[in-house]
Amino acid sequence: MLQPASTPISISLDTIQSLLPQIDVFDTIRQGFIAYSKGEAVIPPVGELLFDQPPGEVHIKYGYIKTAPYYVIKIASGFYDNPKQGLPSSQGLNLLFDKANGQLRAILLDQGFLTDVRTAVAGAISSKALAPSQVNSLGILGAGTQAFLQWEYHRQLIDFQEVVIWNRSPEKATALAEKIQKKGGRARVTNSVEELARHTQLIVTTTPATSPLIQKDWIQAGTHITAVGADMPHKIELEPELVAEADLVVVDSISQTKRQGEWSQALRENLVQDGQAVELGSVLENPKLGRQNDQQITIADLTGVAVQDLMISQAIFENIQ
Amino acid sequence: MLQPASTPISISLDTIQSLLPQIDVFDTIRQGFIAYSKGEAVIPPVGELLFDQPPGEVHIKYGYIKTAPYYVIKIASGFYDNPKQGLPSSQGLNLLFDKANGQLRAILLDQGFLTDVRTAVAGAISSKALAPSQVNSLGILGAGTQAFLQWEYHRQLIDFQEVVIWNRSPEKATALAEKIQKKGGRARVTNSVEELARHTQLIVTTTPATSPLIQKDWIQAGTHITAVGADMPHKIELEPELVAEADLVVVDSISQTKRQGEWSQALRENLVQDGQAVELGSVLENPKLGRQNDQQITIADLTGVAVQDLMISQAIFENIQ
Repeated sequence: MLQPASTPISISLDTIQSLLPQIDVFDTIRQGFIAYSKGEAVIPPVGELLFDQPPGEVHIKYGYIKTAPYYVIKIASGFYDNPKQGLPSSQGLNLLFDKANGQLRAILLDQGFLTDVRTAVAGAISSKALAPSQVNSLGILGAGTQAFLQWEYHRQLIDFQEVVIWNRSPEKATALAEKIQKKGGRARVTNSVEELARHTQLIVTTTPATSPLIQKDWIQAGTHITAVGADMPHKIELEPELVAEADLVVVDSISQTKRQGEWSQALRENLVQDGQAVELGSVLENPKLGRQNDQQITIADLTGVAVQDLMISQAIFENIQ
Repeated sequence: MLQPASTPISISLDTIQSLLPQIDVFDTIRQGFIAYSKGEAVIPPVGELLFDQPPGEVHIKYGYIKTAPYYVIKIASGFYDNPKQGLPSSQGLNLLFDKANGQLRAILLDQGFLTDVRTAVAGAISSKALAPSQVNSLGILGAGTQAFLQWEYHRQLIDFQEVVIWNRSPEKATALAEKIQKKGGRARVTNSVEELARHTQLIVTTTPATSPLIQKDWIQAGTHITAVGADMPHKIELEPELVAEADLVVVDSISQTKRQGEWSQALRENLVQDGQAVELGSVLENPKLGRQNDQQITIADLTGVAVQDLMISQAIFENIQ
């Protein structure tokens, strides 16, 4: 006699947000990357669905860690005309299934929030692992939700005195600076990416740019850049020559960089070769693979890996039970 | 000021099953195939996730029709050891999103039921379009849920006197025959695929076989075969020579047959060429592309297309509102 399937738990955005402070997100995501780079995860290529009227994009990331009890399917979308209708552009959810029998356990109705968080956490972890020993200024390109969250998680791991913000729309950059100031940070706006690049030791790029924003010649010795914007094949934030000539490029997923991210752009131009990038999980497990001295230029190129979605969804689910 | 996202409707399996009789599933699925073959749908390659301890497989199918209001993501899994624990092997759900802004509208907790139904409906539609004018016996390979549903939907479209069932486990074949008899059908079991193949004019194959079950020489002139079992690259039910020498092979998706299905197996052996198969939606729209006479051997090779998931999920959702 077959049993009825167990009923999945539906977890609202409010509940997710209230549970998040109970989770050590840094350790959770760090463990995910380490397992991934040790080959303990099964993560197929990212699924992608594109729309043109109105413009939109959906990413489907899915997979599991062999020793963990769940598999995840994460759906995150960006519909960039939404704000005109008073809707957030990010939408999406995480689904957690029992890996022993395929049953759906939890529907995390996070509307893209967990994707935003795990992306910012990965950025902060990467910067912590690779930044030079002294960071006076943190530079941020972009002024959206992700830019704010990168500041929020970076300041938990790294000491810096000031944030310098550049954004294509200066009004939004000013709004972000004010938001950061209200939260106790020191922030200023610049209208020059070059000025930002020349005067900050740690740069985080969070834009949907499709042509390079940062030129190689602007970057000083010792700088670290964490690039999180380029999550699709046509997106790019850094001049490929910068990627090619950096002393160290760390990527979250070597297999994904064949298709998306800053490394993929440099690969396409034959400026770098497969096998020259190091995976983030390997550096987290063995810091000797990271920055060697305060003169190196280092880059973390993050495209987002399903193992992050798995780890953060699992942590929320286990905290609700 | 951003509005909160609308709350998605969660639709239980019970509700789905109670709404299904209100839907003209044949017309719904037929319209989906026609739109697909006219190039009006955007359907990326199927996502696949495999497990080994215990064995399982997950298929993620997703896409949209340009003129329809929704996009769908369908997750269907098979964990074949589940029955040992008293659980159904099929699991899964359908997610329906608003194509105008990405918001999640409906979570159809169908546990694989809608996948089973739309697969059986597609089988019956294909057989109706391609079977010879007279069918005395319907042959079915396999004795699971899909075998029963194929019978259920076939009898709504096609007149036949008798069902002949073959299954690797004869006990299960007998159980299916008894179930069909209780529902008013005439059914018998055979322990020989060859006998079934030689004496039925319409054959439906629903097994997870990974080596061919039906040989070319067993098939009589005029026979039609609808093959639905081979939904992954390593699965196969028909001898590739049979596929190669059939008068007409109709596939549900030409792009998917490059990877999975009977046609893909014949392609891999260089017995057929790209472009020789005709798409189901084209035949449904223009019956002249179908069977020419009662002597031809025809095959419908179905791998399952997201447009079916979209159409049936949308129909359920629109009936609940």
